[in-house]
Amino acid sequence: MDREHLDAAIVARGRQFFEAIGDEAPSVFKKDWWTGKVMAACMENEQFKVQLFRFIDVLPYLTTAESLGRHMQEYFGREQAVPAALRWGVKGVGLGGRLAVKVLGAVIRKNLHMMARTFIAGETVPETVRRLAALRGQGFGFTLDLLGEATVSEREADAYAGGYLAMLDGLEQAQPDWPAIGGAGGDLDWGHAPRVNVSVKPSALYSQADPAEFDGSAAGILERLRPIYRKVVGLGGYLCIDMEMRRLKNVTLEVFRRLRSEPEFRAYPHLGLAVQVYLRETDGDLERLLAWARTEGLPITVRLVKGAYWDYETVIAAQKGLPVPVYTVKAETDAAFERSAEVILRNQDICHLACASHNVRSVSAVLETARALDVPEDRYEFQVLYGMAEPFRKALLKTVGRVRLYCPFGEMLPGMAYLMRRLLENTSNESFLRQEFVEGVEASRLLESPAAALARTAGACGDGPATTAGAAAGPAGEEAGGLGPFGNHPFPDWTLAPQRAAYRGALEEVRRHLGRTYPLFIGGKDVTTGEVADSVNPARPDEVIGRVCQAGTDEVASAVAAAREALPAWRDTPPRERAAYLVRAAGAARRRMMELAAWQTLEAGKQWDEAYLDVGEAIDFLDYYARQMVRLGEPTPMGCVAGEVNEHFYQPKGVAAVIAPWNFPLAISCGMCAAAIVAGNCVVYKPSGQTPVIGHTLSQLFREAGLPAGVFNCTPGRGAVIGDFVVEHPAVSLIAFTGSMEVGLRILEKAGRTPPAQAAVKKVIAEMGGKNAIVIDDDADLDEAVPAVIHSAFGYQGQKCSACSRAIVVAPLYERFVERLVEAARSVRIGPAEDPANHMGPVIDASAQKKILEYVALAEREGTVVYRSDVPAGGYYVPLTVVTGITPAHRLAQEEVFGPVLAVMKAKDFGEALAWANATRFALTGGVFSRSPDHLQRCRREFRVGNLYLNRGCTGALVGRQPFGGFRMSGVGTKAGGPDYLLHFMDPRVVTENTMRRGFVPMAEGEAAAV
Amino acid sequence: MDREHLDAAIVARGRQFFEAIGDEAPSVFKKDWWTGKVMAACMENEQFKVQLFRFIDVLPYLTTAESLGRHMQEYFGREQAVPAALRWGVKGVGLGGRLAVKVLGAVIRKNLHMMARTFIAGETVPETVRRLAALRGQGFGFTLDLLGEATVSEREADAYAGGYLAMLDGLEQAQPDWPAIGGAGGDLDWGHAPRVNVSVKPSALYSQADPAEFDGSAAGILERLRPIYRKVVGLGGYLCIDMEMRRLKNVTLEVFRRLRSEPEFRAYPHLGLAVQVYLRETDGDLERLLAWARTEGLPITVRLVKGAYWDYETVIAAQKGLPVPVYTVKAETDAAFERSAEVILRNQDICHLACASHNVRSVSAVLETARALDVPEDRYEFQVLYGMAEPFRKALLKTVGRVRLYCPFGEMLPGMAYLMRRLLENTSNESFLRQEFVEGVEASRLLESPAAALARTAGACGDGPATTAGAAAGPAGEEAGGLGPFGNHPFPDWTLAPQRAAYRGALEEVRRHLGRTYPLFIGGKDVTTGEVADSVNPARPDEVIGRVCQAGTDEVASAVAAAREALPAWRDTPPRERAAYLVRAAGAARRRMMELAAWQTLEAGKQWDEAYLDVGEAIDFLDYYARQMVRLGEPTPMGCVAGEVNEHFYQPKGVAAVIAPWNFPLAISCGMCAAAIVAGNCVVYKPSGQTPVIGHTLSQLFREAGLPAGVFNCTPGRGAVIGDFVVEHPAVSLIAFTGSMEVGLRILEKAGRTPPAQAAVKKVIAEMGGKNAIVIDDDADLDEAVPAVIHSAFGYQGQKCSACSRAIVVAPLYERFVERLVEAARSVRIGPAEDPANHMGPVIDASAQKKILEYVALAEREGTVVYRSDVPAGGYYVPLTVVTGITPAHRLAQEEVFGPVLAVMKAKDFGEALAWANATRFALTGGVFSRSPDHLQRCRREFRVGNLYLNRGCTGALVGRQPFGGFRMSGVGTKAGGPDYLLHFMDPRVVTENTMRRGFVPMAEGEAAAV
Repeated sequence: MDREHLDAAIVARGRQFFEAIGDEAPSVFKKDWWTGKVMAACMENEQFKVQLFRFIDVLPYLTTAESLGRHMQEYFGREQAVPAALRWGVKGVGLGGRLAVKVLGAVIRKNLHMMARTFIAGETVPETVRRLAALRGQGFGFTLDLLGEATVSEREADAYAGGYLAMLDGLEQAQPDWPAIGGAGGDLDWGHAPRVNVSVKPSALYSQADPAEFDGSAAGILERLRPIYRKVVGLGGYLCIDMEMRRLKNVTLEVFRRLRSEPEFRAYPHLGLAVQVYLRETDGDLERLLAWARTEGLPITVRLVKGAYWDYETVIAAQKGLPVPVYTVKAETDAAFERSAEVILRNQDICHLACASHNVRSVSAVLETARALDVPEDRYEFQVLYGMAEPFRKALLKTVGRVRLYCPFGEMLPGMAYLMRRLLENTSNESFLRQEFVEGVEASRLLESPAAALARTAGACGDGPATTAGAAAGPAGEEAGGLGPFGNHPFPDWTLAPQRAAYRGALEEVRRHLGRTYPLFIGGKDVTTGEVADSVNPARPDEVIGRVCQAGTDEVASAVAAAREALPAWRDTPPRERAAYLVRAAGAARRRMMELAAWQTLEAGKQWDEAYLDVGEAIDFLDYYARQMVRLGEPTPMGCVAGEVNEHFYQPKGVAAVIAPWNFPLAISCGMCAAAIVAGNCVVYKPSGQTPVIGHTLSQLFREAGLPAGVFNCTPGRGAVIGDFVVEHPAVSLIAFTGSMEVGLRILEKAGRTPPAQAAVKKVIAEMGGKNAIVIDDDADLDEAVPAVIHSAFGYQGQKCSACSRAIVVAPLYERFVERLVEAARSVRIGPAEDPANHMGPVIDASAQKKILEYVALAEREGTVVYRSDVPAGGYYVPLTVVTGITPAHRLAQEEVFGPVLAVMKAKDFGEALAWANATRFALTGGVFSRSPDHLQRCRREFRVGNLYLNRGCTGALVGRQPFGGFRMSGVGTKAGGPDYLLHFMDPRVVTENTMRRGFVPMAEGEAAAV
Repeated sequence: MDREHLDAAIVARGRQFFEAIGDEAPSVFKKDWWTGKVMAACMENEQFKVQLFRFIDVLPYLTTAESLGRHMQEYFGREQAVPAALRWGVKGVGLGGRLAVKVLGAVIRKNLHMMARTFIAGETVPETVRRLAALRGQGFGFTLDLLGEATVSEREADAYAGGYLAMLDGLEQAQPDWPAIGGAGGDLDWGHAPRVNVSVKPSALYSQADPAEFDGSAAGILERLRPIYRKVVGLGGYLCIDMEMRRLKNVTLEVFRRLRSEPEFRAYPHLGLAVQVYLRETDGDLERLLAWARTEGLPITVRLVKGAYWDYETVIAAQKGLPVPVYTVKAETDAAFERSAEVILRNQDICHLACASHNVRSVSAVLETARALDVPEDRYEFQVLYGMAEPFRKALLKTVGRVRLYCPFGEMLPGMAYLMRRLLENTSNESFLRQEFVEGVEASRLLESPAAALARTAGACGDGPATTAGAAAGPAGEEAGGLGPFGNHPFPDWTLAPQRAAYRGALEEVRRHLGRTYPLFIGGKDVTTGEVADSVNPARPDEVIGRVCQAGTDEVASAVAAAREALPAWRDTPPRERAAYLVRAAGAARRRMMELAAWQTLEAGKQWDEAYLDVGEAIDFLDYYARQMVRLGEPTPMGCVAGEVNEHFYQPKGVAAVIAPWNFPLAISCGMCAAAIVAGNCVVYKPSGQTPVIGHTLSQLFREAGLPAGVFNCTPGRGAVIGDFVVEHPAVSLIAFTGSMEVGLRILEKAGRTPPAQAAVKKVIAEMGGKNAIVIDDDADLDEAVPAVIHSAFGYQGQKCSACSRAIVVAPLYERFVERLVEAARSVRIGPAEDPANHMGPVIDASAQKKILEYVALAEREGTVVYRSDVPAGGYYVPLTVVTGITPAHRLAQEEVFGPVLAVMKAKDFGEALAWANATRFALTGGVFSRSPDHLQRCRREFRVGNLYLNRGCTGALVGRQPFGGFRMSGVGTKAGGPDYLLHFMDPRVVTENTMRRGFVPMAEGEAAAV
């Protein structure tokens, strides 16, 4: 194949398309239409685009004129300020006030509905079937897709699958009336393609899909997909499995392979899969897929698309610190499209190609490559989205004949997500359609080969494609030598089989080391004691994780003495050197990532994600505090006056006692210890009695980092025996505590007493409980709010101080929320955390179990328990519980449960919801789901908690991004992982030097005075 | 007088001088000499110059080879690193190690001694007299000046005066042998000038001189000057009163006027005065002086000089926030010289002129102006410094004949200050001598008229002369509108008669308002109570300052309720608006400056300076915290990841109780209240029971600022009645306290208990006591150390938490220090603070008096009381007490006295001194006087106190420059007036918004992710 010749042919083909298209614009860009005007406004004004998109997003929830009017005003300003584009077609505006807004709102709603109809084939099956018939009459094939809400529960997955089956019923009835397209006779379009062609979104078929649980997720999807496919097969139809977010890509590939190769379906050829070329992984995926098809001898179909979630994938990767999985330069994606198409065309014997693009260059390339490779025409077809690029689809139909329209159908409300994606595509700067039809970019540029475009762009902006995302890029490892900017440890990527295997391997490895005996660590030496306590697996209490030596007051006293002895040298160690120890400890933790997480799964009952992120947070604390200390270690000049030099700097407080909880057994322990240590204090660390083995791993990390003896001491023991002792010890200057309010207040009280022998007023850093609320406004996006509440309330069994334990729902949305929530809750699988199929595990111990069960019983008395799960036998399980009818007067609205018990409260309006949210003694985290700009703004100030989250769940604060901690009874107003945190571990000092001697001042200062 | 013609004549005259000088360089610049080499090195390398000057400064104290060697190394590095210039003349170096350093040290000491001899006419009277005779033999007159240490006590003043008399005895004996110069016959040189001519420094004659005490200072100087002058008159000699720092300029003018016009001396004409033209005030001073002479009909003499304390005056003004009193551009001073000279020459009938300058242009100008004005030759003469510009003085002698050399004599050690000034002059960039003899600047430039030079420089650098100093310039007033950068309120300038008069006026005004009744201030309203307590003048306990209503628990409860009620609106008031209230309060305080200070003098017994600076500090707190809050009020973005926006900001803690002390009755009260208020809290303020009327003035300031009702409430009352109540009140979230350790610890303990009704864990900001030490190293400059210790220990009767109560002296300097210290202490006058003659006043009340007297008695038991002053009758006076023989084991080394009792401790070396300094429960302030770079460096780290001062006293921290506060038992590690202070009054919050909706992220963030 002569590349140069081929490229010339592609360009020539493209020019023919352009000629065929002529001056005709797609309907969305026609400016004599409302849609066209609005699109034009969006393309001119980014701010308007943002507001409009968000307004469109919320519109289906605005069911009253009041609500519609209010949002109009919040998004676009007062009536007069509403942009002309939006007001177009509104008659009688100028009446002023509420009436005008009402009229305007109604017209806009109607117009947006019309706009949606541009892209959506119909709202009901009969309507859609009629539309499909009409399209077929024009010579277009179709593939039908059912729009849907996000599937947050198994019942919703059932409903979605049911919708598909109903849709197929409708098609089944209509099919006989449809003559085949292409005039080849028989039942097949163009002589080879089924007339009924449907696309299905796998994520909608299983609410609990999770990349960590690879097999189970595939099985869950298949369970509902199989009846649908069976029906398709029965109709002689074709099914394409759509590809959505990368998160489920590998699971979807697995679903395809399994379905395609199941004995029942092996013989039936009409199963396809969408492949997104914007993913960097696609080259490999495609190669493996084709190899598999060839090995199995199973012909397949691939719908080749560029990918519709670019923003999402980019942002999520950035937020998780993962490599950006998509190409960041458009031409790279275009090149990948041509590359993948060629690969498929070269494998046409085993793989049929559906080329799905509106890009004239891409389509021309496929067409000309196919011809150059002599690919038979029945081995490839072209697909175009319904409602888009109509002039092009006509030209395409005229040229190649085999054009299929991708037709979504369904209700307006669930269709919004789809509409948004289409609007994004049409108005993005890099949209081919925008460039072609709006910007009027010249044909030679539009038809340029992707390679040439890449070379040109690289030349122009001088940097190659980025591979990692924004600021979160690259953990600054110890190898880096100096300390670069801080970045969070990346999230796990369970889509990758090696990561899953590594975790399973780590669990096995850890299990081989269970039951060992662990000493104390004092003054750089292991110390054993007579008393030993067992730590057990909460999912299997007869499994002993480790036997841990227990410190008594003697051991604590010698640990304090060791810390005291180490203090002078350590506090005078330069901050930069102290920081280097932390970076080394972070390196050690990174190397043992999976193993450290696995200990948590077994000792603390943490799910894979939870355990991994806990270790990641520990690493973050080490990396972050190291950098903060380097910053704070530099003396700051104060004032600027000749003849005097003032320096403000910090020194450590002395010996610090760290009393840690079990729920973030490594992260919080590590954070408090690391902060104390890097600030120059010496630490006596008491890990939680529930997770002492994990506490021991922290010892190991600091040992590996080479901390001088006595700087870090580890004394596990019973709180009742050593708690007060260490708090009251006169040599202890600082107590860093995270745990319950009761214990925290006790420590504060004891530390408040200063006996004569004590060197310093004791400083207490106490992070205590929470009774956190998520407010669901009446315009909340339930697709996001329901999973966020589920995750915030039941993640790690609700055993987080940040956990959501109250969902406060504004009345109009109450019923819908509760219904979806309960079904979502019902879908959560419960069992040992080591099995990623279980999204909820056991609580930490029998005492927690007992206490939580008492609250479950209280829930029965105080409200209506609308859901109470079953629990597995054996471990310390408690039922996942949802209780409604709770008001601020109830104990369940006031007391921290620290378990999977969610109180749902119905507030009459947003103001009441906010007031209720604030109406506890705690002030730790909170969340708000709202799409009202004013309400969001109001919350920022009035929802008074340490960490407030707008439109996301209320757990999962990240070091450096969401400095964590609350006030009132939730804590003393420190912020772990924030810029001020280390200040609490130090005392400020100022040194002032009079630099004038005998009237002589060194020049620099003298000059400053003279000018 | 034709200016143009005159200027041409000046230039011509100058050229003649240059011709006469030829190529001859002054000895200090001769490079074949050690001095010349060192000067050259200084001019090349600023850093070396600094080190050398400092080394010269300390050299006289380096009495052992060890000490000399150590300092050599510290200042110049290891032996090999000592600059070649310094090593010149050293033989046998290269032996290495201690011996080499010893040899080097000895040679350098000898060379420096030689260098000093260049400028100093002799070390003893006989030697000096011989030298003077030789100079007279060459045709030069002289004026003799006695070098001296700073006079820190009356005994030293006596000694200095005695030295003068001895000097005069020597001259008396020699005079008969001296033929008159100028061949006019008779006893007078040049026919009109006494042969004996001496200069005297008035500051050396009275140790307690103080611009605030104008009359007394003049009288004190005159008392010792009169016998000297009487002796001069007896010798038929001439006396010139030298002018030193501006601080005593007006007093010196007054001394001159009084002495000149006293009946005993009126008839004797030979009294002169030095006038410094670099002072901007000089034009006016000179005019008034001449007018006075004319009115009195008394001929006078003026020695016109440019001024030798430019660095000092500039720096001190900058540090005090005062206008720079000197011209900042050299040409301005040159112009002033010519201007003043002309004024004097025009008044030659009443005023004789001594033109004292090495500047060829200035001298030529005087010469030509005198000729142009036909001034008789006996009405002006020329003076040149001994040892400087020898070629010029020769040329001058040849030209005009009447040349007098200014000859210092005395010991090397006290001469160092003089040597330093000479070195500075010779090596400064603007030195005429340097320009002429070293830089080789061309004659036309050197002879340029000052006006022309000014025009040229202004053109070149584009800015006019500065009038205020550096960063401390200009208090940002409310009138300024916005908030400019913070600057401290200026210090008082008691040299100005209107300021002194204003203070006296304010005292009278306040006294007219004594005895009023003061209500509480609650919820914006005055509230009176049945119980009223009297506040009295501690210097005169029968004088009632005010009758103050006393709050009981009911009143405090309603104040808390009022604060609570005001809170929601206040905490939501934008930080910038809250800051504006503080700026308005600062404006109100500025307008009432003197009156507010006067209240303190009467109610708290504060000296003028102390009272004024307290009000200034209150203003500083208002101005500073306002700006800090504006800074902290801006939310800080956290992290930088697409799709999420994190904002970190602060909210107030709630209702704050402010419990204030009496010793900084406005400043500390105002600081704590202002911080709480501007941070958004509402305040219940309990002023000290000793200073409730001053507390009331704070109320007035906040009322004047227009604070909303309830934001600030004032409830004076007895601590025993309301203290615990307000601390334990469940609605109080924050307690800001400054006072004793006992009360502070009690508050901490009570606040540590959190009853169920309490909303938040109480935050306590406690500033408590100190037991502060100043360490006197063996190389300390006692001229500075002794006054600093006196001021730090006895200023405001030692009633400062920052006060020095221990002087720890390194053994070799112990005897000299104690001797000078005791004499200095003996010189402190004690009496009511309203009389500025008294540098110590009464303590606050009878109970303080009793407690301090107990410590004085303890001092007798624990050590040796080396000084115990008498006390005036009537008020709450205690003796100023100095006790030696104290070690860390004594109570006097451990307990806070809070009165004028200073324990002196003798440490064997610097290490022991540091260890002792740290050996108390407190850690507030400290000071070190040392000229060892290594020791100073070591202190920075190892002298562990909140505020450490190197080579200055340990009191007087300024807002924004020396953030104030300590740790251990001195406080909880906050820093008033520092950048972190407001953080303690607030809780941090973070709001995180997920900005992605339906996969769509607003462009700015999306782009960030893509790049």
